[in-house]
Amino acid sequence: MRIIRYDDAGTARWGVIDAGGTVRAAAGDPYTELVPGDPVGGDVRLLAPVTPSKILCVGRNYADHAAEFGNPVPKEPLIFLKPPSSIVGPGEAVVYPSLSGRLDPEAELVVVIGRAGRRVKAEDAMSVVFGYTIGNDVTARDIQKSDPQWTRGKGFDTFCPLGPWVDTQFDPSDVRVTCTVNGELRQDGRTRDFIFGIPELIAYVSAFSTLEPGDVIMTGTPPGVRPVQPGDTMTVTVEGLGELSNPVLAEDA
Amino acid sequence: MRIIRYDDAGTARWGVIDAGGTVRAAAGDPYTELVPGDPVGGDVRLLAPVTPSKILCVGRNYADHAAEFGNPVPKEPLIFLKPPSSIVGPGEAVVYPSLSGRLDPEAELVVVIGRAGRRVKAEDAMSVVFGYTIGNDVTARDIQKSDPQWTRGKGFDTFCPLGPWVDTQFDPSDVRVTCTVNGELRQDGRTRDFIFGIPELIAYVSAFSTLEPGDVIMTGTPPGVRPVQPGDTMTVTVEGLGELSNPVLAEDA
Repeated sequence: MRIIRYDDAGTARWGVIDAGGTVRAAAGDPYTELVPGDPVGGDVRLLAPVTPSKILCVGRNYADHAAEFGNPVPKEPLIFLKPPSSIVGPGEAVVYPSLSGRLDPEAELVVVIGRAGRRVKAEDAMSVVFGYTIGNDVTARDIQKSDPQWTRGKGFDTFCPLGPWVDTQFDPSDVRVTCTVNGELRQDGRTRDFIFGIPELIAYVSAFSTLEPGDVIMTGTPPGVRPVQPGDTMTVTVEGLGELSNPVLAEDA
Repeated sequence: MRIIRYDDAGTARWGVIDAGGTVRAAAGDPYTELVPGDPVGGDVRLLAPVTPSKILCVGRNYADHAAEFGNPVPKEPLIFLKPPSSIVGPGEAVVYPSLSGRLDPEAELVVVIGRAGRRVKAEDAMSVVFGYTIGNDVTARDIQKSDPQWTRGKGFDTFCPLGPWVDTQFDPSDVRVTCTVNGELRQDGRTRDFIFGIPELIAYVSAFSTLEPGDVIMTGTPPGVRPVQPGDTMTVTVEGLGELSNPVLAEDA
């Protein structure tokens, strides 16, 4: 099932979308008992399909991406947070901050948690996974490098596009993850090249922080990162899952 | 007014508390129209008095604390995030992780946001402030130092005691902030020694991230940081605001 959130005259509602693009409204809690109902007519604007209490991110989780910035392959997952205020949905603009001179998209497969979990063992990790979506860990690279912590460089409003849906039947074990900009392929990798697999990531983060339904783990980005400019369109594709496009808008535009 | 959250047979409710300790239930949104009602009888267990979507923290905001760890005085505020899952209330145990060998309390004055704000100017900053509470930025110092980012070292469950109330009439401009452990004074500073004042902090963080009602800004910690052990009780006091005590419990105890 592909689960969405959509805009219904200013109210965010849960729904489902089928392979043909038909949206149905859905009732109930998405993580326990979502019941699809009638089709929704007209144009439907999709929102980010999750409302996480925390966005856990993993740095340098593809060996070749770590290498492109001259970083060693980490011995443990490198964890950081993006604030929920940075989330935008499919098609929404990512604002290029006037404070930055280098903005990079980072294509990512995103794990969506469906069940609370603390100290989850790797072998039990899939039991807390609800599904998968697509993310773009937008980064003001210059600010990330000049600040002592990554919080600001990765935490600006609009720096976390997520969507278009959460696929609850997706197999993430060996799929292609790409970022194209204005149709030109830039980042290109496969999830089989993760340094730390999804079960290991869930075990690692839940060893310090309780995972809550709706929380997301962004699994890191493949090599090929290059900057974008206002006017560009960034498209992150995860093979078999879908694609997530967002235009880049200059601040104050 | 001193605003609290309290446990009512398993449900968290908003309330107010007077100088004599009498708790009244309260109805309505705490940030716009909280209306105190009848006194609540019996023992009342206070909860953390806020439910922030993000916990923005400032590192090294007292010049003498920066110096004690050999760090230069920063030219800009050093911002990091703690996850909401790290919050505990007054009296709740802080769990000493088995993964760490050094746990430090950090006494902090905490700003509570009452009104959404983006790109708030320093001169307008007080208009988005709802009030103030007390916080303890508990830190696994060894993990903070060995990890590339501070997220894990400062983000364990229970590492963010907050409370006991939000005081909406408090003047934070020159008050003493201390941490005592088992009654012994350790940290001791005054808010007049902030490197970056509250209006500057609000301007700085809202320049990248929209502040939401209930969000908190932890304003940094004064010098005197020293480790605690399981069995210790940490008490953070902000002069005129109150005190926040939490015991340290060994993991798996």
